[in-house]
Amino acid sequence: MITLGTNQHGKAEVRLVHVTRPATGAAEGAHAIEDLNVSSQLRGDFASAFTEGDNAHVHATDTQKNVVYAKARELGVGSPEAFLIALADYWAEQPWVEGSVMKAEQYAWDRIPTNDHSFVRSGQSVRTAVVNSVGTERLVVSGITGLVVLKSTGSEFTGFPRDRYTTLAETTDRILATSITAWWRWSEPPADWNDAYAQIGEILLSTFADVHSLALQQTIHAMGRAVMEKFDGIAEFKISCPNKHHFLVDLDPFGLDNPGQVFHAADRPYGLIEATLCRDGAPAEPRAWASVPAFA
Amino acid sequence: MITLGTNQHGKAEVRLVHVTRPATGAAEGAHAIEDLNVSSQLRGDFASAFTEGDNAHVHATDTQKNVVYAKARELGVGSPEAFLIALADYWAEQPWVEGSVMKAEQYAWDRIPTNDHSFVRSGQSVRTAVVNSVGTERLVVSGITGLVVLKSTGSEFTGFPRDRYTTLAETTDRILATSITAWWRWSEPPADWNDAYAQIGEILLSTFADVHSLALQQTIHAMGRAVMEKFDGIAEFKISCPNKHHFLVDLDPFGLDNPGQVFHAADRPYGLIEATLCRDGAPAEPRAWASVPAFA
Amino acid sequence: MITLGTNQHGKAEVRLVHVTRPATGAAEGAHAIEDLNVSSQLRGDFASAFTEGDNAHVHATDTQKNVVYAKARELGVGSPEAFLIALADYWAEQPWVEGSVMKAEQYAWDRIPTNDHSFVRSGQSVRTAVVNSVGTERLVVSGITGLVVLKSTGSEFTGFPRDRYTTLAETTDRILATSITAWWRWSEPPADWNDAYAQIGEILLSTFADVHSLALQQTIHAMGRAVMEKFDGIAEFKISCPNKHHFLVDLDPFGLDNPGQVFHAADRPYGLIEATLCRDGAPAEPRAWASVPAFA
Amino acid sequence: MITLGTNQHGKAEVRLVHVTRPATGAAEGAHAIEDLNVSSQLRGDFASAFTEGDNAHVHATDTQKNVVYAKARELGVGSPEAFLIALADYWAEQPWVEGSVMKAEQYAWDRIPTNDHSFVRSGQSVRTAVVNSVGTERLVVSGITGLVVLKSTGSEFTGFPRDRYTTLAETTDRILATSITAWWRWSEPPADWNDAYAQIGEILLSTFADVHSLALQQTIHAMGRAVMEKFDGIAEFKISCPNKHHFLVDLDPFGLDNPGQVFHAADRPYGLIEATLCRDGAPAEPRAWASVPAFA
Repeated sequence: MITLGTNQHGKAEVRLVHVTRPATGAAEGAHAIEDLNVSSQLRGDFASAFTEGDNAHVHATDTQKNVVYAKARELGVGSPEAFLIALADYWAEQPWVEGSVMKAEQYAWDRIPTNDHSFVRSGQSVRTAVVNSVGTERLVVSGITGLVVLKSTGSEFTGFPRDRYTTLAETTDRILATSITAWWRWSEPPADWNDAYAQIGEILLSTFADVHSLALQQTIHAMGRAVMEKFDGIAEFKISCPNKHHFLVDLDPFGLDNPGQVFHAADRPYGLIEATLCRDGAPAEPRAWASVPAFA
Repeated sequence: MITLGTNQHGKAEVRLVHVTRPATGAAEGAHAIEDLNVSSQLRGDFASAFTEGDNAHVHATDTQKNVVYAKARELGVGSPEAFLIALADYWAEQPWVEGSVMKAEQYAWDRIPTNDHSFVRSGQSVRTAVVNSVGTERLVVSGITGLVVLKSTGSEFTGFPRDRYTTLAETTDRILATSITAWWRWSEPPADWNDAYAQIGEILLSTFADVHSLALQQTIHAMGRAVMEKFDGIAEFKISCPNKHHFLVDLDPFGLDNPGQVFHAADRPYGLIEATLCRDGAPAEPRAWASVPAFA
Repeated sequence: MITLGTNQHGKAEVRLVHVTRPATGAAEGAHAIEDLNVSSQLRGDFASAFTEGDNAHVHATDTQKNVVYAKARELGVGSPEAFLIALADYWAEQPWVEGSVMKAEQYAWDRIPTNDHSFVRSGQSVRTAVVNSVGTERLVVSGITGLVVLKSTGSEFTGFPRDRYTTLAETTDRILATSITAWWRWSEPPADWNDAYAQIGEILLSTFADVHSLALQQTIHAMGRAVMEKFDGIAEFKISCPNKHHFLVDLDPFGLDNPGQVFHAADRPYGLIEATLCRDGAPAEPRAWASVPAFA
Repeated sequence: MITLGTNQHGKAEVRLVHVTRPATGAAEGAHAIEDLNVSSQLRGDFASAFTEGDNAHVHATDTQKNVVYAKARELGVGSPEAFLIALADYWAEQPWVEGSVMKAEQYAWDRIPTNDHSFVRSGQSVRTAVVNSVGTERLVVSGITGLVVLKSTGSEFTGFPRDRYTTLAETTDRILATSITAWWRWSEPPADWNDAYAQIGEILLSTFADVHSLALQQTIHAMGRAVMEKFDGIAEFKISCPNKHHFLVDLDPFGLDNPGQVFHAADRPYGLIEATLCRDGAPAEPRAWASVPAFA
């Protein structure tokens, strides 16, 4: 017997830009923009669409897209977390819906100082949020991806075991570079989603810089720890960091030394270090909420 | 109290091309190539690298890369599944290792008929494999990604509920297009990994084509079912399919009809349908093996 | 004095899928699809839009998009070259237009044999076409991009000069791999655009395979020459090929030999070889038609 | 008769990171980093490699890569323009070389304030430079790409002609967004390459913001004009700007108005506006230096 297990359907990557104006429709005055990429997925009593092609319960993915835009008009955005919770709340009241996964990326913009309504995309990092719902519960995970950082000194890698397949030399001064992707699960929401995100970004940067690194492992653990010590409402912190290798170029054949000056920035392969930090006593992530196609 | 939870470290995207020659080092005769992108991650007694920067147990990610290349020489590749199992077996015997996640993508090449050693990249789809290990157990997940297919008729979408936010019209003849990503978890390995992969690719294509589609949900369910009916050793099948919308262009303003001829292929947003199919009585995926940073 | 020079405006990347049915609107019978990405740019008496924001002459880019879809309905596609010529002809008759650049990419699909209307994307290469117009003249350039090929033997690189900065070892047996991008300018159109494209693709593959390569330079020259010898109507042939390096992995530290078996496929940097072949006496590419923003 | 025309060979995308330390090899004190992607191409007496596979004159692409790293050590980087000129000067003195094209992208980093040697990637835009050489002449083109900007008001599009294929409505208040790519060719070098780049970036931003836009054409013309008015040494300015459409979402079906608040950010197609500005009397770009494979 083969049976249908967990499943979900929705609309992915709804590109929403919301403009806040000082008065309805006003061209004058200071505008603000929020630039998001929103995905909406529903779970519930939808099996017959899969098994029989019966769409009587299927909230069309097109309708889910419409709801994203309509709720942006009705409620504004505010923060990706607040907006996704509003979407989850809406869908929780609709027939046949038992749960949902709402996701967003938010892109950063700086003001161009010359006037009140001009902006330039800033930074390389992207803010992320996921709201995973079952019934009335909301699991909120905030995150960041693509925060690219580099230290030109203050990083070592020594003392690792040497076996038949080990060729790497030890080093007490290397470039350490990575692109930080991190997620943090809230058991209690912070006072202000946007302020928390800004603070956490600062903590990640300053911790990366401050820690004299004996291993990338140590650095990412310190980053997660610093974030969780600042925010009691974070139950769990996950982080995934490529070690973006910068190899000192051997200039000996050209009669040149290379005292930590000229590096080749490699693409692939790259080291990959991943970890989870947990707060003792915090509620575990419910298995029932696990994403549908996330194997292995 | 904040504690370190699951963690892993390794080398990602080791680009391996293996050439099989009729005799050692021979230029003559029929060559064969295997083109893979391999990632190696270890779990085990590695916490002190995170908490104290103590690398005494850390199998360097560089060493993990070396093992990929050395094992390719010692054992050949054969299939991504067999190769990853060999890597997992090697690491299972090393100190401090309690488990591992080995992943691979394999790229397809066709022969250029004119001689025995020339090849052209074929297809858009990529073969995938994951071997997730705990102790002596090996969880093997095979897969495919990027299999882009389209039906120019034989697809409907009607009978869905209409509410305040529904604007989508019903249609009894539309283009159905998607890019298939699927994974299948083996409880019993097939007789031949490569042959199983080839057969499953054919089943996915023919089922996509054969099913008169009342919903993309129905089509992906039918694809998974057909695969599982063919291979008893598959315990679980997961599939994720974007609905790559092709919108009929409204040519009325130009005094032209458009009887299913001219379409706009849209990028974003896209529908996204995901499902799991399970074989009754098959062993569940062990939670302990869940990937480290897979939230929500 | 600063003056406005060459300029153009238009709509880029209009994604057009055209379905040919055996009878108007028919679901039955054998369908055919053509999948294109079309860009339309106009040149002419449009300076005042730039200098004064006066749009009285500006054929809106939205209108240019509409023309792509309308002409696909009125005339069909047939081949990217024929379709782009039709677009150029249309625009040549509109007010203020002095010239245009029409471009297209076409994506390849194979039939899924099981029925008449199901398709799977095939290959990695993309067909390209450009029609550059001045008045009644049409410069037609056909091309291909992303044709990825590899030879596992039959490639050498020796005899190059050695100076202070040379460290590369000579080799008489290496992997040669590249991703072919080529363009060919027609002075006389071929009998059939699609047939010519198919033949040229075959010539590129078989020449790549057949030539025992002493340098990638030699291989790309031979490819161009073979194409031009087959088609008298080609006045000029341009080709750009990265040398996708495959480095033999040094397995000596592990006590293993490596007789041409295990390779690392590198990303960056890569060699880059580019050349133009010309037919004597063929008309040169007119400078006036040079693309607007193509510096250096 | 088919003959070999212009050709070039070299190494593309050499990823160079240069660290400047306060004293040779010092970990202490303020570090500075320069992060570049350098491509080197040579032209000259290299035909026999193409026609006969004779490499006696071929400066190996690997050697060209080595020169990039060695010159970075010998001379430092300073600015992409200065570094590329140094590369061009070196190659101009080598046998068989008649010209070269040296290109670079440079990536921006900000300091993390907490210490002297930690950095975070900043901005989305990339600085570009090309030095195209013939004999002793150096054509220097500086540029920027990926400068993404948006105005939430202060942009109109009206007064364009309406014909059979025109459906676009006029608008007196729309979002204007683009990703600026621009190049400027110097007839006289500026006092300081880095300072000029910084100033030009500011001019592009402030002009984009300040101009009340009647057409994207007008905006890009004003940007180029402002840059050339500031820098007399710029002979020519080229700019290519997609119109990244933001469509006001129709919320009428949901009983909602939408006074310039909720937008859909579209991907494709997009408008594309391109222009060249020239200084009267400035020397033209020499045709002989045209890049090899730049058709149409």
